[in-house]
Amino acid sequence: MNLDFSSWKHITKLDPDKKNTKEIIQTVLESKTDAIMVSGTQRITKRKVVKLINLLKDCDKPIVLEPVKAEAVTFSNIDYIFVPSVINSKDKWWIIEAHVNWILKIKKRKDTPWEKIIPEAYIVLNPKSAVAKVTKAETNLSLNQIVSYAIFADRFVKFPIVYIEYSGTYGDPKVVKAVKEELKNAKLFYGGGINNREKAEEMAKYATIVVGNIIYEDLNKFKETIV
Amino acid sequence: MNLDFSSWKHITKLDPDKKNTKEIIQTVLESKTDAIMVSGTQRITKRKVVKLINLLKDCDKPIVLEPVKAEAVTFSNIDYIFVPSVINSKDKWWIIEAHVNWILKIKKRKDTPWEKIIPEAYIVLNPKSAVAKVTKAETNLSLNQIVSYAIFADRFVKFPIVYIEYSGTYGDPKVVKAVKEELKNAKLFYGGGINNREKAEEMAKYATIVVGNIIYEDLNKFKETIV
Repeated sequence: MNLDFSSWKHITKLDPDKKNTKEIIQTVLESKTDAIMVSGTQRITKRKVVKLINLLKDCDKPIVLEPVKAEAVTFSNIDYIFVPSVINSKDKWWIIEAHVNWILKIKKRKDTPWEKIIPEAYIVLNPKSAVAKVTKAETNLSLNQIVSYAIFADRFVKFPIVYIEYSGTYGDPKVVKAVKEELKNAKLFYGGGINNREKAEEMAKYATIVVGNIIYEDLNKFKETIV
Repeated sequence: MNLDFSSWKHITKLDPDKKNTKEIIQTVLESKTDAIMVSGTQRITKRKVVKLINLLKDCDKPIVLEPVKAEAVTFSNIDYIFVPSVINSKDKWWIIEAHVNWILKIKKRKDTPWEKIIPEAYIVLNPKSAVAKVTKAETNLSLNQIVSYAIFADRFVKFPIVYIEYSGTYGDPKVVKAVKEELKNAKLFYGGGINNREKAEEMAKYATIVVGNIIYEDLNKFKETIV
């Protein structure tokens, strides 16, 4: 199993709130995607998260949980927890407080597997997405502002991952390229609207691509995104 | 010159807005303090900062600039810029935006000496201090909340320095001890109200101590703090 997330090229995002059929799970497990991310924004419960992780029990790929709230975190049968900090949120909750609040509630602090917990600096750019609305993201940013956020995350606080998130729509490759050119250490992830080979190839030039929605719409199109 | 800040035990903070007499400068340069920090909260201008740095030109100790605003940053004749991110501020400006805004204004990005720039996770705890007022710090925190902020900074985003700041008053050694016990990688700095040997010795058990105000009040008392 390749646990070196900096080498991953393609990540499949499965939503615990969606219908994860046998066919979907089998397609993902048999594909050449590098890792599976369990992640959703709306109506997420721990019950749904655990159910999806159980469906992946025969998986020989790394499983990453990307929690939207402390109550839906589990450490069982997963390899990583990637924790989004939405650095362009207007609300401090989504930058720091959600995490501090989670730490506050940990009962057996010494048992926390910190080596599994990887922070992601999210820059959320589609104002119509659920994630932008929930996290009150400031999406009206110039290219220079977006790049400045990325440099802040990469070289100031040194996040291991910078995540350009256009959730639900295909983003601007110029933005992803410009960010990629400025990153020194962080790995760049891109997510949003990748639903065919052409878009996958374009964004894969600059970033690790995260493919989600299309798997629930067209399994053949999903397979095309693994280039 | 010892540039390994994780080995420093005593830092002297000089305020560009205060009267830095020859006697003060000479006392600091001849003392066994490990580094000199140029830092102030109120009425700071670049002119005052440069003037103070010039007074330190014969210094054989590391000089750290701790800027309060982008306009007063200089890279000349200093060894580090320690940049506070006030993680218990209610205002996102003091956590992220001030830094992103500074990055946005950098003209020659490729020339920025990032290796000199070290972020500090400030936890500001004296509500009456200028720094708490300016940064809108949430100082009404339980011990568990303070420790949770420190763990967030140490193990989540991995700040190299966690700074417990009681600016203007002597803090609670129990808080500093509790934070020290939870830090895995970050270096703990403590500042506030250290004006004699006893207080210096007590806080130095847990943290690198930062001594400031007393130097403008009583040079002999200042010398006592270097234990």
